[in-house]
Amino acid sequence: MKEKIQEALQEIKRGSSEIIGEEYITHLLQRFFQTQERFVLKAGFDPTAPDLHLGHSVLLRKLATLQKYGADVYFLIGDFTARIGDPTGKNQTRKPLSQEEVFANAQTYQEQVFKLLDPAHTKIIFNSQWLNELGSVGMIELTSKFSVARMLERDDFAKRHSQNQSISLVEFIYPLLQGYDSVQLKSDIELGGNDQKFNLLVGRTLQRAYEIGKEQSVMMMPLLEGLDGVQKMSKSLNNYIGITEEADQMYAKILSISDTLMWRYYELLSAKPLSEIQHLQQAVQNGDYHPKTAKEDLAYEIVQTYHDTHQAEIAKANFNRVFANNEIPQDLPIFSFDTEMWICQALKESKMCDSTSQARRDIASGALKINQQKCLDAQLQLVSGTYIVQIGKRKFSKFIIKG
Amino acid sequence: MKEKIQEALQEIKRGSSEIIGEEYITHLLQRFFQTQERFVLKAGFDPTAPDLHLGHSVLLRKLATLQKYGADVYFLIGDFTARIGDPTGKNQTRKPLSQEEVFANAQTYQEQVFKLLDPAHTKIIFNSQWLNELGSVGMIELTSKFSVARMLERDDFAKRHSQNQSISLVEFIYPLLQGYDSVQLKSDIELGGNDQKFNLLVGRTLQRAYEIGKEQSVMMMPLLEGLDGVQKMSKSLNNYIGITEEADQMYAKILSISDTLMWRYYELLSAKPLSEIQHLQQAVQNGDYHPKTAKEDLAYEIVQTYHDTHQAEIAKANFNRVFANNEIPQDLPIFSFDTEMWICQALKESKMCDSTSQARRDIASGALKINQQKCLDAQLQLVSGTYIVQIGKRKFSKFIIKG
Repeated sequence: MKEKIQEALQEIKRGSSEIIGEEYITHLLQRFFQTQERFVLKAGFDPTAPDLHLGHSVLLRKLATLQKYGADVYFLIGDFTARIGDPTGKNQTRKPLSQEEVFANAQTYQEQVFKLLDPAHTKIIFNSQWLNELGSVGMIELTSKFSVARMLERDDFAKRHSQNQSISLVEFIYPLLQGYDSVQLKSDIELGGNDQKFNLLVGRTLQRAYEIGKEQSVMMMPLLEGLDGVQKMSKSLNNYIGITEEADQMYAKILSISDTLMWRYYELLSAKPLSEIQHLQQAVQNGDYHPKTAKEDLAYEIVQTYHDTHQAEIAKANFNRVFANNEIPQDLPIFSFDTEMWICQALKESKMCDSTSQARRDIASGALKINQQKCLDAQLQLVSGTYIVQIGKRKFSKFIIKG
Repeated sequence: MKEKIQEALQEIKRGSSEIIGEEYITHLLQRFFQTQERFVLKAGFDPTAPDLHLGHSVLLRKLATLQKYGADVYFLIGDFTARIGDPTGKNQTRKPLSQEEVFANAQTYQEQVFKLLDPAHTKIIFNSQWLNELGSVGMIELTSKFSVARMLERDDFAKRHSQNQSISLVEFIYPLLQGYDSVQLKSDIELGGNDQKFNLLVGRTLQRAYEIGKEQSVMMMPLLEGLDGVQKMSKSLNNYIGITEEADQMYAKILSISDTLMWRYYELLSAKPLSEIQHLQQAVQNGDYHPKTAKEDLAYEIVQTYHDTHQAEIAKANFNRVFANNEIPQDLPIFSFDTEMWICQALKESKMCDSTSQARRDIASGALKINQQKCLDAQLQLVSGTYIVQIGKRKFSKFIIKG
């Protein structure tokens, strides 16, 4: 029993950057193992960005782990403020979402998150449900529970205040609304990114102030590094893998990461138990296991998770076929393009050729291979996909076209 | 026309401590004199303290003056927050008021304020009417219109913040609610005490932010000095004259004030035009008019206002009868007592006798006169009223029993 709890706790803590109230989590686990009584796990999601990438999946994976150990997941869509938009009018891009848009986005979430989460222990809920009802009187009560000084302790507020940058009063209200969600849900644990620490703790404070009889523990997960291994994974940096991305592309992108990043991804993205991962690392160290194989296994698992076993097999085969020719080096330079590209333009931008005219001449002379196939079409448009591109004997690149 | 506006403006500005947006007031007066179009004058009142004294009447008198020059008075009872009570729980004495209590207090206001205000141009209104409806979404919008830094500029907030004294976030909300009342009422002028400057200006800011097409001018009146001429008039300092106080008492209290305070009261409490008051002052200076007569005239006017001419006549006659015996000095020491008093106790507390035993002996010896009548009753209870008390030939005091 003690061992089971220890093991669970280890899997729960895996990869997390900080946990506040760990004793309470231990208590919840004990109770679950003894009585099967489940507990409430809250995680808030932005209703404006339902197109998830692997960065988001760090949280989802953690929710899934906790579900195994007794968590009922409240997948909270913070639609209340999204429905309002940006009332300060500063952020023109933050248009209010309509009821329909919120539901459509929630639908998209639903399609994506159940690739990881157990539907039997997941509730997708909207905070407008109680925040609309809160009313002016409820808002007065809510604001009475928190002090100005404490709010000004939040890093970004403290910085802006000291630099005389304006803070709208409404920005002081948002963390309270998020905290009030914890009061309503009577959450036992709230999970969030480690940039959310202040707001997550507001939930604890408010649960105490409203005397609901518990104080949520708070678990923070790090932001996942993108494919470059340095910056956080994000769409705008184009270093991401989307959850709905095609199998081939997903597989190839994982194969392109560094070995260090691979172990980081194992920790945060794989469903393999810690013990197994440690075993793999040991095997690689002993030389019993090639790091490329470890990377292939990770890529396979991820494609399997977001697509299925069949597609994982195909993606693996496709990738191997392309790389069958041993002339192709392991570490290709990668170039990503947002839109369809004319082959000569792509060759120029990747500096494989000095100019588009040079590219035309190279193609005419039969020097171009795409995915190991000779290509003589200088008008070719590269559409969405991954391409191993070769000029002559020694120049290789990988082009990723998002289209 | 220009002269009429000048005269009106002079009466409006009379006694005020500060006016912001005077040009707009001039514009409103011009429009009124030209077209008889009236304007909206807002003044907020505390729903918990409907028992008014002359200190409050300074604002009421000003409202009455403005009514003459085109103001429709919105007598705003801030019941919304009073209905909530003190949500921080710090102020145990601030119990939430029930709907019935609010209406009962409003009724009391109504009975008192129409002694000064013109009912045809007065509306008594409650801000819960729109603040309840505002809802959580409206509150979000409201808080988005104001910055944290600007709120921290309010003197008391700045002081407490710099001294690390806690400020609850709800305290930042209250000034916004008061300002939002100005948005709802579309007020042209708001009148308030000079301790309200910050909050009155919030109304201006919010009217601009909500783009209602006008920005209220703000008029501030000083706090009236109490009978002592030094501290502000207040119940707790027992230096006040209640609007519902008895005619005799009211009259006698005014007669007890200093000459300097008398002219202050003329300025702030009398309906006499400025020109007439200046004329009186001149006459006193020239020795054509005794200051005591000026004081009697003021007392007479005030009793007439809050009671009627008949009662003013009686009060004057009573006072003169009591003071007919010239032995009584003009400047009596005054002692106020909150409850009924045993005569011996009162004599001891006023130090007219050294002890209650001494008082008994003096009374037994026939040395006590009350209101010029010999009194031999050492058990006498002094009930509510004003008493000129004399021991022997030279010791005089005035006892005011509130009972």
